Amino acid sequence: MYSFNNDYSEGASPQILDALIRENLVQNSGYGLDGHCRAAANRIRQEIRRPDADVHFLTGGTQTNLIAIAAALRPWQAVISASTGHINVHETGAVEAAGHKVLTASCPDGKLTPDQIAGILALHTDEHMVQPRMVYISDSTEVGTCYTKQELSALSGFCREHGLYLFLDGARLGSALTCASNDLTLADIAALTDLFYIGGTKNGALLGEALVIVNEALKPDFRYMIKQRGAMLAKGWIAGIQFEELFRDGLFYRLASHANEAAGQLRQALEACGVAFAYPPCTNQLFPILPDAWVEALSKDFQFQFQDKPDSTHTCVRLVTSWATPPEAAEAFRKALLALAAG
Amino acid sequence: MYSFNNDYSEGASPQILDALIRENLVQNSGYGLDGHCRAAANRIRQEIRRPDADVHFLTGGTQTNLIAIAAALRPWQAVISASTGHINVHETGAVEAAGHKVLTASCPDGKLTPDQIAGILALHTDEHMVQPRMVYISDSTEVGTCYTKQELSALSGFCREHGLYLFLDGARLGSALTCASNDLTLADIAALTDLFYIGGTKNGALLGEALVIVNEALKPDFRYMIKQRGAMLAKGWIAGIQFEELFRDGLFYRLASHANEAAGQLRQALEACGVAFAYPPCTNQLFPILPDAWVEALSKDFQFQFQDKPDSTHTCVRLVTSWATPPEAAEAFRKALLALAAG
Amino acid sequence: MYSFNNDYSEGASPQILDALIRENLVQNSGYGLDGHCRAAANRIRQEIRRPDADVHFLTGGTQTNLIAIAAALRPWQAVISASTGHINVHETGAVEAAGHKVLTASCPDGKLTPDQIAGILALHTDEHMVQPRMVYISDSTEVGTCYTKQELSALSGFCREHGLYLFLDGARLGSALTCASNDLTLADIAALTDLFYIGGTKNGALLGEALVIVNEALKPDFRYMIKQRGAMLAKGWIAGIQFEELFRDGLFYRLASHANEAAGQLRQALEACGVAFAYPPCTNQLFPILPDAWVEALSKDFQFQFQDKPDSTHTCVRLVTSWATPPEAAEAFRKALLALAAG
Amino acid sequence: MYSFNNDYSEGASPQILDALIRENLVQNSGYGLDGHCRAAANRIRQEIRRPDADVHFLTGGTQTNLIAIAAALRPWQAVISASTGHINVHETGAVEAAGHKVLTASCPDGKLTPDQIAGILALHTDEHMVQPRMVYISDSTEVGTCYTKQELSALSGFCREHGLYLFLDGARLGSALTCASNDLTLADIAALTDLFYIGGTKNGALLGEALVIVNEALKPDFRYMIKQRGAMLAKGWIAGIQFEELFRDGLFYRLASHANEAAGQLRQALEACGVAFAYPPCTNQLFPILPDAWVEALSKDFQFQFQDKPDSTHTCVRLVTSWATPPEAAEAFRKALLALAAG
Repeated sequence: MYSFNNDYSEGASPQILDALIRENLVQNSGYGLDGHCRAAANRIRQEIRRPDADVHFLTGGTQTNLIAIAAALRPWQAVISASTGHINVHETGAVEAAGHKVLTASCPDGKLTPDQIAGILALHTDEHMVQPRMVYISDSTEVGTCYTKQELSALSGFCREHGLYLFLDGARLGSALTCASNDLTLADIAALTDLFYIGGTKNGALLGEALVIVNEALKPDFRYMIKQRGAMLAKGWIAGIQFEELFRDGLFYRLASHANEAAGQLRQALEACGVAFAYPPCTNQLFPILPDAWVEALSKDFQFQFQDKPDSTHTCVRLVTSWATPPEAAEAFRKALLALAAG
Repeated sequence: MYSFNNDYSEGASPQILDALIRENLVQNSGYGLDGHCRAAANRIRQEIRRPDADVHFLTGGTQTNLIAIAAALRPWQAVISASTGHINVHETGAVEAAGHKVLTASCPDGKLTPDQIAGILALHTDEHMVQPRMVYISDSTEVGTCYTKQELSALSGFCREHGLYLFLDGARLGSALTCASNDLTLADIAALTDLFYIGGTKNGALLGEALVIVNEALKPDFRYMIKQRGAMLAKGWIAGIQFEELFRDGLFYRLASHANEAAGQLRQALEACGVAFAYPPCTNQLFPILPDAWVEALSKDFQFQFQDKPDSTHTCVRLVTSWATPPEAAEAFRKALLALAAG
Repeated sequence: MYSFNNDYSEGASPQILDALIRENLVQNSGYGLDGHCRAAANRIRQEIRRPDADVHFLTGGTQTNLIAIAAALRPWQAVISASTGHINVHETGAVEAAGHKVLTASCPDGKLTPDQIAGILALHTDEHMVQPRMVYISDSTEVGTCYTKQELSALSGFCREHGLYLFLDGARLGSALTCASNDLTLADIAALTDLFYIGGTKNGALLGEALVIVNEALKPDFRYMIKQRGAMLAKGWIAGIQFEELFRDGLFYRLASHANEAAGQLRQALEACGVAFAYPPCTNQLFPILPDAWVEALSKDFQFQFQDKPDSTHTCVRLVTSWATPPEAAEAFRKALLALAAG
Repeated sequence: MYSFNNDYSEGASPQILDALIRENLVQNSGYGLDGHCRAAANRIRQEIRRPDADVHFLTGGTQTNLIAIAAALRPWQAVISASTGHINVHETGAVEAAGHKVLTASCPDGKLTPDQIAGILALHTDEHMVQPRMVYISDSTEVGTCYTKQELSALSGFCREHGLYLFLDGARLGSALTCASNDLTLADIAALTDLFYIGGTKNGALLGEALVIVNEALKPDFRYMIKQRGAMLAKGWIAGIQFEELFRDGLFYRLASHANEAAGQLRQALEACGVAFAYPPCTNQLFPILPDAWVEALSKDFQFQFQDKPDSTHTCVRLVTSWATPPEAAEAFRKALLALAAG
């Protein structure tokens, strides 16, 4: 039984684990004020070409999203998201628990556009309604799609024109930046957003997300917010060491490329069998629409998540590959598919 | 210039004002622990045939909604509302500021149905999503429509079956209960909901809403919540006296009937001129769709709110009548309309 | 039975009530955007010699405190108060419910000093602790004492030097400004604080507090906060009319002087009987320490609140006079006291 | 330079690290729903003799405290703590950010008593004040002291009698349970509290705290709260594996004993030099009061934290030992001390 349930089913990339083992008994300062966190932050600053950026290491996506949003907004302000956005659906109301409304637009491909944001702004005109102040996007999105440089530039320009912070959730940024259709770099993202995070948990770290703040207005006192929300690790260097490795020699990109290649194998097999996709296949999350009988048959050897039921005889499922997916697992899936297609 | 902007443009019904004047210099206990609040609560308990109900007097709708919802929900729980619901659109995110997500369904006539709620429940199945625990409706709704006894009974049954509190926002409950199509009583509402409020501000009180709690589980410690959210009036009897009058001799219904009759005058005139309505005209809020030229002409003598623009030559406006609308104002509007229709 | 329980046992000053009656059926714009609120705000601006000040009318002290504090602070910031401060003891944790810690100093006379604040600042030095950002004081204080101009100037200077907002709770500001030892004016208070409120509820209004914001940084978007916390009255002009009267011709000061004079009568009688006070008697709240037998005897004809029990044979009580206290009530109390003292 | 700054300066106990390495590439279910978390929870249930207990694995102390407290309290309820309590001082107002007031008593030795709690209850009698509902203690305390079984039983009895939840912060519970004066077991703690946590971070885990809920009323929906506050690790088994090891064969106690023994070495040396302690030395935190000159001299080779300045020539510092403190480091400190004492 192999699981394509998600990209956080295994531990850490061996290179990362080795670094943790190597440093295990060295004494470090607590709370992220250590040399590894400093070194990792510097590597990220270099990678994004923003020596002035603030970099904080947190432990998970929901935590990073809620802290970034709650630190940026005043009590009456709201964040705009695709209705499929992780903060809107899968974070148990974490943003609302921090006091803020999530305003949503319906985005068939998971990507927000300036027009959709403009429509929301037009409806929020006085103090009887919340005040939109931030736009939240994810890249890759919750449905596996990616922003192009042109799309992100358009969003960025619109947000700056309208006084909206642009926050990019990069839980799966590695997969986005290494997929075939991508034309963005980390430096582009730093140039086009106000803050964003680089996901480690879903790209080969034991745990860890690197939150990058480029907008000066969002920097002051940020560590207070991290501590208050219970997100400041006593042994902060554990996250620092991992990002040091991820950005030491391109490991971050290699791990994500591996996940994308495994997804590519699956995609080719699915396409060869004439399978359609609910969303354009592009990164390490695929949403094929399969005959129900195939789903049942595949479930005997593979785990994957149910997405929805587009009609009475088909099921859309989610297949996720990771930095750790062995080529053999993808190959086994291909063979199983071909056998089903052959009837 | 006469204003049909809303039903809170004037002070208090003379009967209420007289009571306030009469009692002005009598000493009362503070914080709602006085004889007037007790007497008013008793009258309401009698009217709703629930001697066991708790009754609290608050000062406005947003305040009452946020306190009722925040007191009932645990941090991870959410309230379901029509997307047009007041709590979703016009309360500056007050529910979210209290930590709770508002889950919405699109309701063309402003009224929620069990099917819509079932659809939302089906999507909220585990701890990665908020937990729906309350349903919020308003009667009359934000678009002037009313629930029938059958509709409210169906909602009530569904909510009880699924462990959802049913909360009815009665800011304009008087208008609902006295409109031609109504078949509900206050006693029905108390029997079918867990808590609801009876609006005074929009029905002839200077200010005041009576929150009625019938579900035993929601009663304990409620005054703590009122005080904490800044809603406990030092001179609580000011609200008590007003509800004493509203429920002394049927004043509550007489005032609401007056508003409905004035709306009826406007409605007849509009229908006589062939005007269509965006929502079924029923209570003291009307949403006629007028030629733009008429809107411009009427604006010289009457105030009313813009609702939306259904096409390039028409505008939907909102006309609201009140307990204080003089028959002459409705008559003047009728004449102006007829003149326009006559070209 | 006459009640010295508090200064909000009666309705409104007749001058205020007359204005409400006179304007009762005139149509006004909702939500405080009416001519009365504008006129009242202008009178206050003139009185405090700050034409640039923002003035908002709210309905009670707890509400005003929580909104002012929550609007000014970022999530990790705290407010400093005397441990006897109303926000620390008698508001059911309203400030904490808005997310902020109240840091306290023990102040025997209810008044904070720069030294006490400095002591708190010295303990809050990094992101593991909350960040003090505002100082909350009340004048008169919860124990009936008042700040002198020198004391308030010292606090103001200290706060400005240390980047702390100074917020003055003026629920009983009228009594403070008209007491014998006072040397402050409303204009002084506007010059020395960042925001403060002028209490109406405890000085002859039916209800209403005028929040005055003089610090430019605290002005933007404030009405969003008022609406979100359920504090924006639909019939906002009800508060506006009352403050129009309070500041039309000195009514605010006359009402407060009356309360202080009645308290002066009580104080003289108490001193004549050799009674000591727990806090210096100064405004309309007195804290005499009485033999238990006297307390029992006086309770037959007068209501007042228990404060504490300094020893086994004495009780400290709180006597509060108001704008409405009839001279006869004070005289009756005096006679009762003298009879007790005479044995 | 050796650091006695704290007990979280190194990574993980080798036994724990080995388990993480061994399991690194095995696929696990996400979010703590895996076999390691189940096994670890079962071992803890067995250790505390409460097969019915719920066990959740979180990543840090502040996070665990805020979630436990926020999940247990209704909005108007407060938690009682020693004024030195971690939640009161060193968590950046996390409890208040979740909406709850922390009520404090001054405890010279860091330990709360029933009498102190009774004093707080006596002052909180109506809805104008917060409602105390939980008592927070830590064992060992922030000043290194421990509760005896008699003390904890007395607290437990008092809390049950007065409807207060008793929550024990066990960030350093290992050190408490293995110190010389201890007479409590984990089973006792489970029997005497409503919920508590067993600290891993400060006792040899990379990160992780095991929150144990024994009171049935606090169990429902707890995972919603964990997810909402950003505390649900995607790779939850990382915490699970660590607690599996800690409770496989007594490692938890062995690690803590090591820390206490190292502290014992330091304590003996300090006592031999005639040094007094600010708090009774007992666990792995020591608070010796040293001549300033010694502090300066020791700082050349050792790191430790400043605690306070009891007089003009002495400084109280905090020395913390850990599961990883090498005997050589303690010995070096002893020698340095003796040299200073010898002049």
